[in-house]
Amino acid sequence: MLDATHDAARRSRVASANGHADFPIQNLPLGVFAPPGGAKRAGVAIGDSILELASAPLTGVAAEAVASMADGTLNGFFALGAAPRKALRAQLSELLSEGSTAELVLHDSGKCTLHLPARIGDYTDFYAGIQHATNVGALFRPDQPLMPNYKHVPIGYHGRASSIVPSGTALRRPNGQRKPAAETQPSFGPSRNLDYELELGIWIGPGNSLGEPIPIAQAAGHIAGYCLLNDWSARDIQGWEYQPLGPFLAKNFGSTISPWVVTPEALAPFRVAQPARPEGDPKPMAYLWDETDQAEGALALELEVWLTVPGAAPHRLSTSDARGLYWTPAQMVAHHSCGGCNLQPGDLFGSGTISTEAGYGSLLEITQGGRKPLTLPSGATRRFLEDGDSITLRARARRDGFAGIGFGDCTGTILAAP
Amino acid sequence: MLDATHDAARRSRVASANGHADFPIQNLPLGVFAPPGGAKRAGVAIGDSILELASAPLTGVAAEAVASMADGTLNGFFALGAAPRKALRAQLSELLSEGSTAELVLHDSGKCTLHLPARIGDYTDFYAGIQHATNVGALFRPDQPLMPNYKHVPIGYHGRASSIVPSGTALRRPNGQRKPAAETQPSFGPSRNLDYELELGIWIGPGNSLGEPIPIAQAAGHIAGYCLLNDWSARDIQGWEYQPLGPFLAKNFGSTISPWVVTPEALAPFRVAQPARPEGDPKPMAYLWDETDQAEGALALELEVWLTVPGAAPHRLSTSDARGLYWTPAQMVAHHSCGGCNLQPGDLFGSGTISTEAGYGSLLEITQGGRKPLTLPSGATRRFLEDGDSITLRARARRDGFAGIGFGDCTGTILAAP
Repeated sequence: MLDATHDAARRSRVASANGHADFPIQNLPLGVFAPPGGAKRAGVAIGDSILELASAPLTGVAAEAVASMADGTLNGFFALGAAPRKALRAQLSELLSEGSTAELVLHDSGKCTLHLPARIGDYTDFYAGIQHATNVGALFRPDQPLMPNYKHVPIGYHGRASSIVPSGTALRRPNGQRKPAAETQPSFGPSRNLDYELELGIWIGPGNSLGEPIPIAQAAGHIAGYCLLNDWSARDIQGWEYQPLGPFLAKNFGSTISPWVVTPEALAPFRVAQPARPEGDPKPMAYLWDETDQAEGALALELEVWLTVPGAAPHRLSTSDARGLYWTPAQMVAHHSCGGCNLQPGDLFGSGTISTEAGYGSLLEITQGGRKPLTLPSGATRRFLEDGDSITLRARARRDGFAGIGFGDCTGTILAAP
Repeated sequence: MLDATHDAARRSRVASANGHADFPIQNLPLGVFAPPGGAKRAGVAIGDSILELASAPLTGVAAEAVASMADGTLNGFFALGAAPRKALRAQLSELLSEGSTAELVLHDSGKCTLHLPARIGDYTDFYAGIQHATNVGALFRPDQPLMPNYKHVPIGYHGRASSIVPSGTALRRPNGQRKPAAETQPSFGPSRNLDYELELGIWIGPGNSLGEPIPIAQAAGHIAGYCLLNDWSARDIQGWEYQPLGPFLAKNFGSTISPWVVTPEALAPFRVAQPARPEGDPKPMAYLWDETDQAEGALALELEVWLTVPGAAPHRLSTSDARGLYWTPAQMVAHHSCGGCNLQPGDLFGSGTISTEAGYGSLLEITQGGRKPLTLPSGATRRFLEDGDSITLRARARRDGFAGIGFGDCTGTILAAP
């Protein structure tokens, strides 16, 4: 599946793209932006610039793909599936290459506002980070950290779509009910245990009709792209509210995503085999099992979490790896639709928090539920997040012989509760 | 709040409306329909007819309200809030009264297709039926049926919006993973324990901005109307998947709603005080407590569930009452937004299954988890639903001195699994 668009030697006419950590010409992620004083429109990140897609002299299905974005969202584009996306990538790679003299409208990305790339119809959060599930489970059930269903079922739940915001949007600390173990009665007020969660986001398209499951062998064809997702979590609200129906207000005050949609084609060089299951783990059931998916359905992505507290330099809290997921994105698609649930273009999945043995994707794990506060280089300490703190998620894909690519920042700052 | 539109003596020029169990002139519910061969458009149910709203000679904000429906949804109308809705009701009541000679386009409702009245942005299912929660809890935990949080927190969770369908849509039985207690390994296949749930649906509008909670005193103003909701549930899938994050595939294969939006104004004569909490129950926290809401925030609605099995007449499975809800719709709005989550016009809430001591809102309760099969008058027996079975939910509001109104049928039929 690799082609000239992946050639590490290809250089861009946009000088800042050459050697760019996130957006070299080998990436070409799609998004929706507004230039200063302008309306929302579709674009492609290239180095420190954004190419306005409507300005590009495209032909055939690539031109039709851009026409589908005329409403200022990528929903129609996600609905088209892989072929127009690949044609668009091929033509954009040529137009943005060194030597191309096509007339293009490029904007300074630092002066533009990035928006959500699509209307999110439904948002589903999975729980596929097995190390995270084990770490969190161990805090509550040391003898049996994982539920009996975990290695059979790609556990997930429905989240809140309306409160998903693009990187750079500040969020207020939520008020809510909480009842610490030491208190006899619940009380209402600002969350005291506010946390982040490091997740991969998965954009869906074209999707399926109600009652028509997506077979696992076709599931990868319904993934339109990837982003980073910070599933902010109020642990004290969660602990009190979540039984018996799961997290609700603990999560729905806001989730932050990186605004650029990194395509499956851009990530093709970084596909790897799904890590082998430990000896004794059950083989996935037939509706979740596909040899191709097992051979190349995982992504080699290095992940980072940075914390910036007021008055101090950013501090890298942890590193992780997308290979910490027990289920592939295609398995999530097949599972979600196996009972007939209809997935739609612009639906978003979260992977679940991704931790490794060495790097934790949440403060809940780093500080062991707040019991072991973290001391930062500035001397500040944190059990959980305080007002004014910012969290930035980053992802990088690297492989010898290929140009590395990234996702761009996924940043959010916590403001005081209302 | 009662006015001439509630006058029991008012009769309609549409003869079938006079004495109509659901849609007399005192109701005037709004919806979206398509006449044979025609496009979707907004209408009002009046007896056995549907008034095409765009045909009505309306003035002022009532005319603007109908203009907001030009896209074939009520989302824009829900966003306008109560004042235009009341003005529209007043003018429609006059236009449809006996003696009115205004030119109107009326359709035979039996020949029209009813659609979802709005694009559902996010769907949230509450768990406010305390008798249901107690009955279900008792099946699993006889000593402590209700969780410690139940009487403090209006428990709810996010559901799936894409698979909500209007009455009359057949649904396929879902396949999924299930592991009965008697089996050592989970398996995949058609649900064996398919159930319905009797719920009230609550349409939201205008809603709030992210980070700006809706105070309880203003919460009722964000309710645009009501419908019936059948939260179909695959109990065997639910039992295996739901820990620790709640129901997922057990619920998202489809939910059925009645297509007419019964307005708060139509229900004004049937508002009653929230039933007093049993001695010893905690008083709701301040953000959930409002004297007016306590005095008139509940609805006196008689509810019915009818089961039709192939080859037999419909059988009334149970009767229930909306006063079986432990939390008012306004308390649900205030709770949902208290942490800053933004509600939007066209969001839908489910109340949770409504049971009373005498009438159960699910087969799970009627057959005690399938242990005590039900024998129907035809001699057929049911533990749970079989292929070809239909469930119809109905609601009626009655009060001496007022014309009774209803919601119309909420019907769904179960087809075989794919």
